[in-house]
Amino acid sequence: MVYDLIIVGLGPAGAGAAIYAKRSGLNVLCLEAEAPGGLLNRINTVDNYLGFPHTTGPELAALLFEQIRKLEIPFKIKKVTWIEGGETKKVHCDNEVFESKYVIIASGRKARKLGLKNEANLVNKGISYCAICDAALYKGKDVAVVGGGNSAIEEAIYIAKLVNKVYLIHRRDEFRADEKLVEELKKLPNVEILYNSNVTELIGTEKLEGIIVNGERKLDVACLFTYVGYEPQGDFLSDLEITDEKGYILVDDNYQTKEDGIYAVGDAILKKVYQIVTAASEGAVAALEVVKRVKNNN
Amino acid sequence: MVYDLIIVGLGPAGAGAAIYAKRSGLNVLCLEAEAPGGLLNRINTVDNYLGFPHTTGPELAALLFEQIRKLEIPFKIKKVTWIEGGETKKVHCDNEVFESKYVIIASGRKARKLGLKNEANLVNKGISYCAICDAALYKGKDVAVVGGGNSAIEEAIYIAKLVNKVYLIHRRDEFRADEKLVEELKKLPNVEILYNSNVTELIGTEKLEGIIVNGERKLDVACLFTYVGYEPQGDFLSDLEITDEKGYILVDDNYQTKEDGIYAVGDAILKKVYQIVTAASEGAVAALEVVKRVKNNN
Repeated sequence: MVYDLIIVGLGPAGAGAAIYAKRSGLNVLCLEAEAPGGLLNRINTVDNYLGFPHTTGPELAALLFEQIRKLEIPFKIKKVTWIEGGETKKVHCDNEVFESKYVIIASGRKARKLGLKNEANLVNKGISYCAICDAALYKGKDVAVVGGGNSAIEEAIYIAKLVNKVYLIHRRDEFRADEKLVEELKKLPNVEILYNSNVTELIGTEKLEGIIVNGERKLDVACLFTYVGYEPQGDFLSDLEITDEKGYILVDDNYQTKEDGIYAVGDAILKKVYQIVTAASEGAVAALEVVKRVKNNN
Repeated sequence: MVYDLIIVGLGPAGAGAAIYAKRSGLNVLCLEAEAPGGLLNRINTVDNYLGFPHTTGPELAALLFEQIRKLEIPFKIKKVTWIEGGETKKVHCDNEVFESKYVIIASGRKARKLGLKNEANLVNKGISYCAICDAALYKGKDVAVVGGGNSAIEEAIYIAKLVNKVYLIHRRDEFRADEKLVEELKKLPNVEILYNSNVTELIGTEKLEGIIVNGERKLDVACLFTYVGYEPQGDFLSDLEITDEKGYILVDDNYQTKEDGIYAVGDAILKKVYQIVTAASEGAVAALEVVKRVKNNN
């Protein structure tokens, strides 16, 4: 069977697309490699999504999933390995191929690594990219957070409530994050901010035992939470040649890539604003574009 | 005092902008002519806004307002009468003028009238543009709904639960609305669909006593609910010359109008997709653009 539309990724962008596609009567399939909600599952606080005075990432992810199920939108938990273009698109998973007339890629981004020696080996052994997953493991201990954007500050605030002390390590002398958040952070008694600072070394082999900052100061931290931005996760896209050199997908005003019938939305694309609401909106716009083409048969 | 930013209108687009502006530390003021939430207050069902498996317009409007108050975003219930451009913008209300460096217009749309004789006189006397406001007044009676898009169908379904019978009058032989909605409508035993039909006359002078369809068939309905689309409400914009001939505001990729420092978002602008999520997203993008300019002082 050939679907009208396959959506790759079920975060806010993919779910945003799925809702509009399904309600318009398209024969749609969603493929998600991990948990519905995407990056939402790794975000603690969500205060800027319209309609939710305050919520958490996992709460919003759960509502998103409830909405998908309520609309009876077919989905499979499967990792896409590559996509073949052409009139009928072929979306390859490990040992299955799905076919569709149109594809919307909403595969999002993942946390960027620091690029330090031994970093990969220490993941989940003292290196974490997800405070909401791991912070509770470090009750009573000292930890470090690296980064200066909204994610770093939000997560540092969250972590500070659980652990003994948080060192916030930021490479600049001021923050990119919202002022409101920075003020909140500065009020916390157990947060020490290290400006103009970089983590230069990880100590420990089996597990993290400490870090070196700026080549000289040693901090005895049990965990290093890393929030130094994101990178697109598009290893399955290399055949299509639709990304820039950093891996972001290039799209036109309708969110179509240069491959006819393949669209992309959300954090995976090159754009100005990476937010939940922009992702959901792009999903809606791209889906309605596909709906129009399916109904006009072109 | 000169605000950093004045936002005109507090529906999803204006609120979307306000959340981002305030959280970024801007000195912002919101002006809303009626109730916070804008058109949400006149929509019954909201099933396609990500994160809400099912809600109503007024519920979403209430949450939006709660979010505005929680963030302590200053707002005034005042109708804007005109806006003066220039380096410092002047936003005129009935007997007050507010000044700001930037303006985001999010004044939305209002229901389009049918253009029939005596229509204006019969508003609220049997002509309604808001099922959620008025349908309960017609319990046990027969009413008509005119229109063929999502709004018309959604509201007809809602009205059918309250009244004796609904005539759905649609000028075409098929619907523009989502298939799912149309199916639901067709299942209702007390809905009669009149295709290829137009309301050609309103009967009654003090109150609506019936309507004539296609110049011949008389329907004894106590109310006519009109959902034939929307038009921008931009009477306060005429001095700026930033709209097209239909009154939609023309914007660039950053949602800036041709007047430097005046942005516009949501239903008030010319665009492809008019949805809650697109409005909220545009508000966020425009606000972050203004934030960047305020911080860079340009």
